[in-house]
Amino acid sequence: MIPRYSRPEMVAIWSPETKFRIWFEIEAHACDAQAALGVIPKANAEAVWKARDVTFDVARIDEIEAVTKHDVIAFLTHLAEHIGADDARFVHQGMTSSDVLDTTLNLQLVRASDLLLAGMDRVLAALKTRAMEHKDTVRIGRSHGIHAEPTTMGLTFARFYAEMARGKARLQAARAEVATGAISGAVGTFANIDPAVEEHVCKMLGLTPEPISTQVIPRDRHAMFFATLGVIASSIENIAIEIRHMQRTEVLEAEEFFSPGQKGSSAMPHKRNPVLSENLTGLARLVRMSVVPAMENVALWHERDISHSSVERAIGPDTTITLDFALHRLAGLIEKLVIYPETMLANMNKFKGLVMSQRVLLALTQAGVSREDSYRLVQRNAMKVWEKGADFKTELLADPEVTAALTPAEIEEKFDLGYHTKHVDTIFARVFGAA
Amino acid sequence: MIPRYSRPEMVAIWSPETKFRIWFEIEAHACDAQAALGVIPKANAEAVWKARDVTFDVARIDEIEAVTKHDVIAFLTHLAEHIGADDARFVHQGMTSSDVLDTTLNLQLVRASDLLLAGMDRVLAALKTRAMEHKDTVRIGRSHGIHAEPTTMGLTFARFYAEMARGKARLQAARAEVATGAISGAVGTFANIDPAVEEHVCKMLGLTPEPISTQVIPRDRHAMFFATLGVIASSIENIAIEIRHMQRTEVLEAEEFFSPGQKGSSAMPHKRNPVLSENLTGLARLVRMSVVPAMENVALWHERDISHSSVERAIGPDTTITLDFALHRLAGLIEKLVIYPETMLANMNKFKGLVMSQRVLLALTQAGVSREDSYRLVQRNAMKVWEKGADFKTELLADPEVTAALTPAEIEEKFDLGYHTKHVDTIFARVFGAA
Amino acid sequence: MIPRYSRPEMVAIWSPETKFRIWFEIEAHACDAQAALGVIPKANAEAVWKARDVTFDVARIDEIEAVTKHDVIAFLTHLAEHIGADDARFVHQGMTSSDVLDTTLNLQLVRASDLLLAGMDRVLAALKTRAMEHKDTVRIGRSHGIHAEPTTMGLTFARFYAEMARGKARLQAARAEVATGAISGAVGTFANIDPAVEEHVCKMLGLTPEPISTQVIPRDRHAMFFATLGVIASSIENIAIEIRHMQRTEVLEAEEFFSPGQKGSSAMPHKRNPVLSENLTGLARLVRMSVVPAMENVALWHERDISHSSVERAIGPDTTITLDFALHRLAGLIEKLVIYPETMLANMNKFKGLVMSQRVLLALTQAGVSREDSYRLVQRNAMKVWEKGADFKTELLADPEVTAALTPAEIEEKFDLGYHTKHVDTIFARVFGAA
Amino acid sequence: MIPRYSRPEMVAIWSPETKFRIWFEIEAHACDAQAALGVIPKANAEAVWKARDVTFDVARIDEIEAVTKHDVIAFLTHLAEHIGADDARFVHQGMTSSDVLDTTLNLQLVRASDLLLAGMDRVLAALKTRAMEHKDTVRIGRSHGIHAEPTTMGLTFARFYAEMARGKARLQAARAEVATGAISGAVGTFANIDPAVEEHVCKMLGLTPEPISTQVIPRDRHAMFFATLGVIASSIENIAIEIRHMQRTEVLEAEEFFSPGQKGSSAMPHKRNPVLSENLTGLARLVRMSVVPAMENVALWHERDISHSSVERAIGPDTTITLDFALHRLAGLIEKLVIYPETMLANMNKFKGLVMSQRVLLALTQAGVSREDSYRLVQRNAMKVWEKGADFKTELLADPEVTAALTPAEIEEKFDLGYHTKHVDTIFARVFGAA
Repeated sequence: MIPRYSRPEMVAIWSPETKFRIWFEIEAHACDAQAALGVIPKANAEAVWKARDVTFDVARIDEIEAVTKHDVIAFLTHLAEHIGADDARFVHQGMTSSDVLDTTLNLQLVRASDLLLAGMDRVLAALKTRAMEHKDTVRIGRSHGIHAEPTTMGLTFARFYAEMARGKARLQAARAEVATGAISGAVGTFANIDPAVEEHVCKMLGLTPEPISTQVIPRDRHAMFFATLGVIASSIENIAIEIRHMQRTEVLEAEEFFSPGQKGSSAMPHKRNPVLSENLTGLARLVRMSVVPAMENVALWHERDISHSSVERAIGPDTTITLDFALHRLAGLIEKLVIYPETMLANMNKFKGLVMSQRVLLALTQAGVSREDSYRLVQRNAMKVWEKGADFKTELLADPEVTAALTPAEIEEKFDLGYHTKHVDTIFARVFGAA
Repeated sequence: MIPRYSRPEMVAIWSPETKFRIWFEIEAHACDAQAALGVIPKANAEAVWKARDVTFDVARIDEIEAVTKHDVIAFLTHLAEHIGADDARFVHQGMTSSDVLDTTLNLQLVRASDLLLAGMDRVLAALKTRAMEHKDTVRIGRSHGIHAEPTTMGLTFARFYAEMARGKARLQAARAEVATGAISGAVGTFANIDPAVEEHVCKMLGLTPEPISTQVIPRDRHAMFFATLGVIASSIENIAIEIRHMQRTEVLEAEEFFSPGQKGSSAMPHKRNPVLSENLTGLARLVRMSVVPAMENVALWHERDISHSSVERAIGPDTTITLDFALHRLAGLIEKLVIYPETMLANMNKFKGLVMSQRVLLALTQAGVSREDSYRLVQRNAMKVWEKGADFKTELLADPEVTAALTPAEIEEKFDLGYHTKHVDTIFARVFGAA
Repeated sequence: MIPRYSRPEMVAIWSPETKFRIWFEIEAHACDAQAALGVIPKANAEAVWKARDVTFDVARIDEIEAVTKHDVIAFLTHLAEHIGADDARFVHQGMTSSDVLDTTLNLQLVRASDLLLAGMDRVLAALKTRAMEHKDTVRIGRSHGIHAEPTTMGLTFARFYAEMARGKARLQAARAEVATGAISGAVGTFANIDPAVEEHVCKMLGLTPEPISTQVIPRDRHAMFFATLGVIASSIENIAIEIRHMQRTEVLEAEEFFSPGQKGSSAMPHKRNPVLSENLTGLARLVRMSVVPAMENVALWHERDISHSSVERAIGPDTTITLDFALHRLAGLIEKLVIYPETMLANMNKFKGLVMSQRVLLALTQAGVSREDSYRLVQRNAMKVWEKGADFKTELLADPEVTAALTPAEIEEKFDLGYHTKHVDTIFARVFGAA
Repeated sequence: MIPRYSRPEMVAIWSPETKFRIWFEIEAHACDAQAALGVIPKANAEAVWKARDVTFDVARIDEIEAVTKHDVIAFLTHLAEHIGADDARFVHQGMTSSDVLDTTLNLQLVRASDLLLAGMDRVLAALKTRAMEHKDTVRIGRSHGIHAEPTTMGLTFARFYAEMARGKARLQAARAEVATGAISGAVGTFANIDPAVEEHVCKMLGLTPEPISTQVIPRDRHAMFFATLGVIASSIENIAIEIRHMQRTEVLEAEEFFSPGQKGSSAMPHKRNPVLSENLTGLARLVRMSVVPAMENVALWHERDISHSSVERAIGPDTTITLDFALHRLAGLIEKLVIYPETMLANMNKFKGLVMSQRVLLALTQAGVSREDSYRLVQRNAMKVWEKGADFKTELLADPEVTAALTPAEIEEKFDLGYHTKHVDTIFARVFGAA
């Protein structure tokens, strides 16, 4: 976790305090269930809740762990210091450390998912706003980095919106993947604990009982979770790269927002760097790097080995914290992105009218000119634009072979931008629903 | 694609013949839609179907492409050779190569998904059969590769079943991700083609129109698809590693099936190697390696760059072919896996009764012996088993401090295997539904 | 392996014919060594060489393998068909299949390395030629995609040269990593074969004996090999992305070569797509994807498991073939890259003189103006350029506060391009050696 | 960075204090060089060294950065607070932030390399000691997890030694890759600073001047560095998996050291878990996950973009800290690993004598029995061992068809363990040099 790339809300989910708090809740709920089953005395179960409002002392637990060399035992020892050794006697009965650890991890991932979903909502809202705002802002569409045909800035925002909306649906599915808990004992047989305990604890925590666990919750769930985060990060990179391109000096169709007083920006106005979107590109790589180890974690030996644990200690917090930060950085970036519609038009007309050449070619063909001749006609006029900076439409109107096939009005019509934007509403309706 | 790791059904999906067949269908359906819109003459649209039963000549198309240096144009030229240049005049009108290429790729991925789903069904059926068969076959559960508590072989199969069932649900979602088509033109604005064409073509091919595309269908869909295959492959690896462990000489709880006459197996009966499951481990790595490049493909420049194309030419076929092969290899392996229940019991009793030590410890604690004393009592008897090969239960029954806390019957009961298997039916009902 | 991304020379290294040819050589050399040791009769060893000029019949070997289910045995059976069963009796004696397979794989990787090194040489030669040619071709240097200070096109080529030269040195090291052979028997103890055989075979094949092997050659060597290819591919991507940026419509400082008659290029002169460099970007991803599985192959069980094998069957050929193709595609691209020096100058002056603002700022500071005042002075003149298209130098010369600190000559001097290129020769000497 | 998986020595290299210390040294050395060139006054250069023994106040620098939003400017401002604004006036002149940042990163990586090399030396020493100790400790070699032929524990340690020694050589090469510095200005042209400054600073820091840089040091160097760490981590995993296998309950040829009083170990002596080696398996995944993003960092836009920066902020510390910790954990594990030679022998004889079946097969063939007959003979005796627990040698001696081909002494000789260990000294000499 890198402080500068983290938000406190997400960091808090992964703090030792939160972890111990969840451990406590699992143990306390389990005691309730055990008491309901008659396995332990009701009074002892109730006594555990004396620690309901305790903020556990991380330093003290660490101190105990230094002796016991076992984190869960250290916590239980400390818990007993709060509720009394006698009342604590039945805590954790029939349970395995992994019951606590795995259920906790999943609860943390669920909470992390909720924060991430909120982050995605913010990104979606920003994209929708900007899409509506620039629905009709015409810019040149580019394939291979080369001018192709006109499109609108709104369509660009709209496609990012659609992509992020898919990402949100994926994240909701990924959240469901990890929203399970397990209290099933050393090898998952419930030999020492009734399945009813698992059911109760999961219910109280908003989780689903893992249908079949071993000592651990199966790690294909987590692999799917982190793979999903990797895809979302890649979508963030997709948006980031678009903005970086738009801000290049030669393109300059947009700029990341610079506060007026921001150092450097005004003495060298040409030197406003798209550092946020470049940073997002890097953060996407960081999120993505957890995908393969999460998949390598799936194949555990028999009923569990602990190879996955160190990996998750790292990628659990790091990946969710980084993605959470990236989503909010992205949202802010989009919200404030400065758009230059005039430059968009200027760029489109860099080679005057040439982006319409394909349309003219098609029109000639449809007017009965052979494909070869159409090519030749477009070519000879296009080269004048390309080489001498002529205006394409003017040249076409002056070419008798062209005007033999197309009337001036027909030629004129080929340069109508409305031709390219006529289905924008249709597409918007597909993406955002009917107005 | 490695011939020895491929099945002809999946290879066929990726053959040039299939590809050109799909291209043809897209073009023909598009012509129908264009004719319905009045954009092209109905007769021309109908004429295209003259090629309905043609198997396109790949060598001829390659020959043309060598000249045109453009695959779609080469195909269209060849198509015209079949239906006549005049009738072919309106084919592909208003379309972009990517309209054809991307819709085709997605259709191939959908078909590949269907084959993969069938493979998963076969794996699921095999796992269920074996789970039922060995529901009560007791074996030792292991954490860290170390004996823990008893479980059953049926539970092992059942958890793989549950994992594969999750994989199947994921694959169905992944199939939906790529089941889209796009006929939206050079930058996705439908400037040159009515959205109705896209709708018709997609409907005829069983696809959904991509709500908003650029020149291409957005690649986050494919990233999610390949990520999902990577997770499924990791689950295959999980099963493969279990079998490899079971077949180790020292464990020998199962063996991959060897046909009686198979060379080497009988002259060196100890030398039956789990080569199929080892191979599956490797194949899982191959499937997984497509995940990161598929994610790197998401961030394309503006309305498309072609960097994704070479990646997909490789991972499209390779990954689906490999996973398809792996699923069927896995299914066969499970169907025929030779299980040795007697060895399972013998392994469990390697240190006579010692795997019950935790239960005895718990019983002593519950009987009012302090945690420390319980530990000491278990320890001194356990060490006799460990060091001298004594029988744990016998030692406990002979230890007056133990018998002071637990009756012989109570001690005896701690060694009852039924204790560990009492919830197997519950778990099976969770996994397979009520009987 | 994708035919369109492969060169026959590299494909040939991985053909079954080549493989069997190497197998034969290993077996024949081993027989020579065994005969020299007196283990087998000299006559039999000599007889093996009867097959010296045989091209082995792949179909026939496949046919035998279908029965024996063992590739090396199938080959030996076929070999016996050539040299006679009696003379063939001693072939392979004391050896293990892996002795043949692993030594062959490494020899193929060595040969592949030699082809790759030749490819790198071609790239290096092209880069050097173009660097010399454009040593003094001034263009704007960009950080964050934003104009920074002038540099030269030659420096761009020179840095790619230096990077590729590092890549070449890495590849030479990687070649040495895999240039080992092993003939050490079932678990690497030489129990059944004298180490002298390994020494002789390796010597004849140009390999080093693996100091200590198990049944296999240790896979950390191969991991390092593929990791190195991944780094080289990333360097290719680095060059490819530079070219793609240079060719964007708004930048247009270079274009991939288009043959004059190439379809599409002249009718739409603005629509020459950098498809080769985009393709290289994708190919880089493909090469890179072998790195992780190659690393996952390192941790084999005990004296070997066969999980690595399927991975290597794929990445051995695929990765070397793809990288080989990419290197030659890159070389051709650089050799023929069309450079537009005039556009470079025009781009640099998009905001007239503004790229010199940092230099002016420094000059003012050095002339004793406070950092804050210097900022203010540069800023107010820069904004006129940025917002109104003024000429920066003209504005500065007209600003009394500026001219109070700097003489006109001093201001003029700040706009001298020679200032930026004065160390180009020094850098070239570092990269290419003294002239 | 996860505290429990880190050693303070490596953490210190990445502390803000260390970073600012290096920044100071770079700036101070640069001032010296600038003074030597006459660019700045000698007195000012000397004055900078007033801060020689300052421990920079990280909180204060953060405070300034909150205002300036630029880390290097914040540091320079703070530095001026120490040496006086007037003397500080010439600090950083002609330099770019990246000059400082990149040179610092590389110096940190060099120092990290030195710590890692020390860690590898400790691992190597441990492996050598244990190899010598167990040079003749016979155990069964296994391929596919299945008993093959005898080998020795010393050979296992020796091959890990050889692999780690290769790793060390690779790390030395990787260290050289990143042991460069650059003080070359905004786009690497030395426009504002003489190359002599770079030379001086690098010399004082023990670095080599980067032959050609842009605003940044080229990232192929770092990609190679992290790729190398990934390979070393994979070798650690290789050793870890061997130990995990040896410690499985059914194998039990070794155990990680448990301190006598360690909780749990004696009450459940069968339940000593190989948690250190399992942990190393996970740590290897963590180290490896930095490889791909490091490679993705290579292709920067033009003279630099800042996408690499966030990646390096994470993987720079995390990967070196994790690998450093893993090396020392591994060394401790090997140093104290408890080896059970008797279990090794017992395991080898699980199927009495059967592991010699291949040797008997070979002997029969060499004695003139046909391959088919040899097979049959071995097979029928082997099956008695396999199915009924007979002793292989006894059965062979009682089989008249076998004794017709081999004398009792010859049969006896096939079971001589010395046959398998006769070349151990040769191999040790290859690995460790002549005694």
